[in-house]
Amino acid sequence: MADDPAPGFRRWALKLEYDGTGLVGWQRQNNGVSVQELLESAAARLIGGRPLSSATAGRTDAGVHAAGMVVQLDLPDDAVTDARQIRDGISFHLKPHRVAILAAAPAAPGWHARFSATSRAYRYTILNRPTRPVLQMNHVWHVRRPLDVEAMREGAALLIGRHDFSSFRAAACQASGPVRTLDVLDVRREGEIVTIDAMARSFLHHQVRNLAGSLQLVGIGQWSPAKLGAVLAACDRRQAGPTAPSEGLCLTAVGYPADPFSAGTSAS
Amino acid sequence: MADDPAPGFRRWALKLEYDGTGLVGWQRQNNGVSVQELLESAAARLIGGRPLSSATAGRTDAGVHAAGMVVQLDLPDDAVTDARQIRDGISFHLKPHRVAILAAAPAAPGWHARFSATSRAYRYTILNRPTRPVLQMNHVWHVRRPLDVEAMREGAALLIGRHDFSSFRAAACQASGPVRTLDVLDVRREGEIVTIDAMARSFLHHQVRNLAGSLQLVGIGQWSPAKLGAVLAACDRRQAGPTAPSEGLCLTAVGYPADPFSAGTSAS
Repeated sequence: MADDPAPGFRRWALKLEYDGTGLVGWQRQNNGVSVQELLESAAARLIGGRPLSSATAGRTDAGVHAAGMVVQLDLPDDAVTDARQIRDGISFHLKPHRVAILAAAPAAPGWHARFSATSRAYRYTILNRPTRPVLQMNHVWHVRRPLDVEAMREGAALLIGRHDFSSFRAAACQASGPVRTLDVLDVRREGEIVTIDAMARSFLHHQVRNLAGSLQLVGIGQWSPAKLGAVLAACDRRQAGPTAPSEGLCLTAVGYPADPFSAGTSAS
Repeated sequence: MADDPAPGFRRWALKLEYDGTGLVGWQRQNNGVSVQELLESAAARLIGGRPLSSATAGRTDAGVHAAGMVVQLDLPDDAVTDARQIRDGISFHLKPHRVAILAAAPAAPGWHARFSATSRAYRYTILNRPTRPVLQMNHVWHVRRPLDVEAMREGAALLIGRHDFSSFRAAACQASGPVRTLDVLDVRREGEIVTIDAMARSFLHHQVRNLAGSLQLVGIGQWSPAKLGAVLAACDRRQAGPTAPSEGLCLTAVGYPADPFSAGTSAS
């Protein structure tokens, strides 16, 4: 199978935390530093420059953060044998960049970071107060007008389930179709912080940020909660709200039928 | 009274949030940028370079953060009349520094940011996991060894109350005496994050960081909880643990008999 490691390679599962500020996102690009480039460079230093390849459970955009991204790393099968050495060695070589490995484990046969994943969880964070972000700078969307979280929750409930999400899909989206099943869309307030937690098997490009942008319009009272249902039914990106800024978004977890990091051979 | 505003000046109460990373702390110093210098410069720009003076509820050290520092600012009494203008105008002139005004209000007669304060609350945050901090970089103390929070709580309970805290007092402390009343010393875990909340009328220099350093020794099992009682009784700084790093510390709140920001004339 094309998705298995090449002959002579062994697959490792890695859990990553990164601060997306100043990075171009997960994928290698010509216009800046990517998480993929940093990870592969650090792994190459660990194994003395031998060949390797990586793939991710999901590509994050420029400025988006991760607290639990899962990535696969195919290394020469005699290069490293210990999960702790991978976790700590790659984290060491990633310094001083704000990227580190939280956990590492040998992958089970047939496991693929992207194709085996059954859920992705994102948290979108809004700082809702008059004063600009200071301690949370680069990690929140700053919304000055008071948000009505109850109205946002009411609107969010209309979006949960299996729908054509064309209204919340970026024009550049490369997915084969616009239908997704949104399992969770939960809005909560804790003081000045309003969080939007979203979970699905997979998301369309910019889907969470587009949902956050429209939920914000409900929160400030510009839209009724019911309007979100109408926007969803329109299947038209022009009907929905703006794309919320990237810095408020964090990939928190990727789910698999079996936790790749729970085995005794993992380091976590 | 020497503590009242000079003739022709009006006193304002400000609540500040700042990220202490890279700053020398609250107080003006020759070796770097202080919060006081940034605040006074920004306020001077708001009022066209006219004279002003400031004082704080407490001096924070280099690298220490604040989410609710209270400061007084004496401005010419005809310079500004609106609390919102002070909050937003000073915050604007503080850009791009990680310092901003959360709230502003005209001070009540006789009010002084430091002498009227009846409590200070600090939070010390530890990231307790093998991997170095990424998303919380510069805002936590990284402790790799697993912390026994129950043991820390047991030890902390021995320190609450009115005691001679000489064992937890920096040599450079300028307070007149070593006796303080520690009202709260609460240790909690939420996932990888362990927080130590401390509240007192006032603290000795480095007291919270010294308490955190000793609590950490209990947490990793190097000390029994009871040892903290013995260290306290010794009244000897050499008996206590190390001073925990500044970046884990945040001043969260300053208390007054009447909330300076609750009046209708405040902006918060």
